[in-house]
Amino acid sequence: MSTSTHLPAVTVLGLGPMGRSLAGAFLRAGLRTTVWNRTPGKDRELVEQGVTGAASAEEAVAAADLTVICVVNYDAVDALLRSEPVTTALKGRTVVNLTADTPARARETADWAAAHGIRYLDGAIMTPAPSIGTSQAVFLHSGPRALYEEHRPVLEALGGTHTHLGAEIGRAATFDIALLDLFWTAMAGYAHAVAIARAEGVTAGELAPFAQGIGAILPPLFAEFAQDADDGTYSGAINPLTSAASTMAHVIDVSEAHGIDAGVMRAVEGMARRTIGLGHGTDGFIRVAEVLGRH
Amino acid sequence: MSTSTHLPAVTVLGLGPMGRSLAGAFLRAGLRTTVWNRTPGKDRELVEQGVTGAASAEEAVAAADLTVICVVNYDAVDALLRSEPVTTALKGRTVVNLTADTPARARETADWAAAHGIRYLDGAIMTPAPSIGTSQAVFLHSGPRALYEEHRPVLEALGGTHTHLGAEIGRAATFDIALLDLFWTAMAGYAHAVAIARAEGVTAGELAPFAQGIGAILPPLFAEFAQDADDGTYSGAINPLTSAASTMAHVIDVSEAHGIDAGVMRAVEGMARRTIGLGHGTDGFIRVAEVLGRH
Repeated sequence: MSTSTHLPAVTVLGLGPMGRSLAGAFLRAGLRTTVWNRTPGKDRELVEQGVTGAASAEEAVAAADLTVICVVNYDAVDALLRSEPVTTALKGRTVVNLTADTPARARETADWAAAHGIRYLDGAIMTPAPSIGTSQAVFLHSGPRALYEEHRPVLEALGGTHTHLGAEIGRAATFDIALLDLFWTAMAGYAHAVAIARAEGVTAGELAPFAQGIGAILPPLFAEFAQDADDGTYSGAINPLTSAASTMAHVIDVSEAHGIDAGVMRAVEGMARRTIGLGHGTDGFIRVAEVLGRH
Repeated sequence: MSTSTHLPAVTVLGLGPMGRSLAGAFLRAGLRTTVWNRTPGKDRELVEQGVTGAASAEEAVAAADLTVICVVNYDAVDALLRSEPVTTALKGRTVVNLTADTPARARETADWAAAHGIRYLDGAIMTPAPSIGTSQAVFLHSGPRALYEEHRPVLEALGGTHTHLGAEIGRAATFDIALLDLFWTAMAGYAHAVAIARAEGVTAGELAPFAQGIGAILPPLFAEFAQDADDGTYSGAINPLTSAASTMAHVIDVSEAHGIDAGVMRAVEGMARRTIGLGHGTDGFIRVAEVLGRH
């Protein structure tokens, strides 16, 4: 098909569930899509649909100006990109790294890319693989604004919401880490609540509608507490830390009385008690964030 | 005022922020309201508005068929109700105990009440004091259904949503504890996320809209995971425990690299790693609830 050469081209490295979803979404958006994965065979279904399966990583990255990489962590990114033939093939091209890792690793990768004439954007995918290609997908990006704008049409072929968080390359990873911190901590709270409820004869299904009610009150509290944290006001008029800590002690009592590990809530109560010990007992809970960050 | 004797009467024991809100809401709903608090003087503003300030707890409980008590914990409830004159005055009357504590304490209090001819309902208030008297208030109740129905019109004068969770007296406290477990764990996740973001140069205000996005995806996940937990399916197809644990390790890395205590996430990762160690690495995160509850 001679017209196909006029479609933008993109390469996807890594064919885990997320990489496969990315390549499939690019293909369905009409892009010439090339893929490569360390373990062979993972491209079979995509190739049947029209994706090009490259014989090597260097062949894959040479097939497009833009390579999107999404693998397990930056160790895997390094193993892939820092082989001499791949580094050479990437010179003058752009890498968008959607792999999850730390802001420090993102900065270090950007330095490496700059030293090798590779243009580099970092990003994070905040939604699960099945969201890719749909309006539900959420992507965060950071790095040079002009470079982001240049590749934005291709990235937006992945659907969903794309936010450029700024030129500082570590920002996407920072938001990713902070949001995953919130997400998994909240999920741990839910799993523990389910365990306690069951020990008291209440099913997860009975608890769920009320848990959803708690979920619904969190977003406005997040906004209110962010304001407090940035202003340094920490108002505890409605719910002072001392009350919160008493509540936490009740949760631990009930949990441990059933032989259920309360390590998470013990750590949460510890944060609250240390903050109270520093003289902030009448402040609101978000004062904990300020104490955690102290040096 | 001779007509006032035809309005229902209610007594409120305890005048912390919550007790004052309860008494104020009863008064505004037109109930003859009597209050008492261990520390004198806390009734001043309420008395100016038309509430009767009793000279003693026994005088307060004798002024109405229904006494609502909301104090710091059940130790404070016991100190108040288990004095001989108060116990005697309560005989044949109803106590609705909205104090937060454990399901075991609720059951023990119900046994004590039964032994002294006192009718007893237990409850929990899931929303902060300013919500009382508004549509935002959320009350949970447990205990004999007929007794609840008898006092329901008075309780509903407090506004908001009232749910009778069943005859088993510990149920309100069980839901309360489980939901507070979820709430404070989630808030701890948010406070920690804010601390990490700040250490990386991102303000709480910048993070907040994305944190709200995470908050918004929790309720549907709670429903889905409850189904998994009750069915024993624990599907990890989209997000297996092994991936979750890798993410948690990244959060800990970033946190501790900034000297920020990661005790909460270390405990969360520990739960995940132990669950993986028991052979559930390809399951979804909610499998953790089942492992926590094992004996």
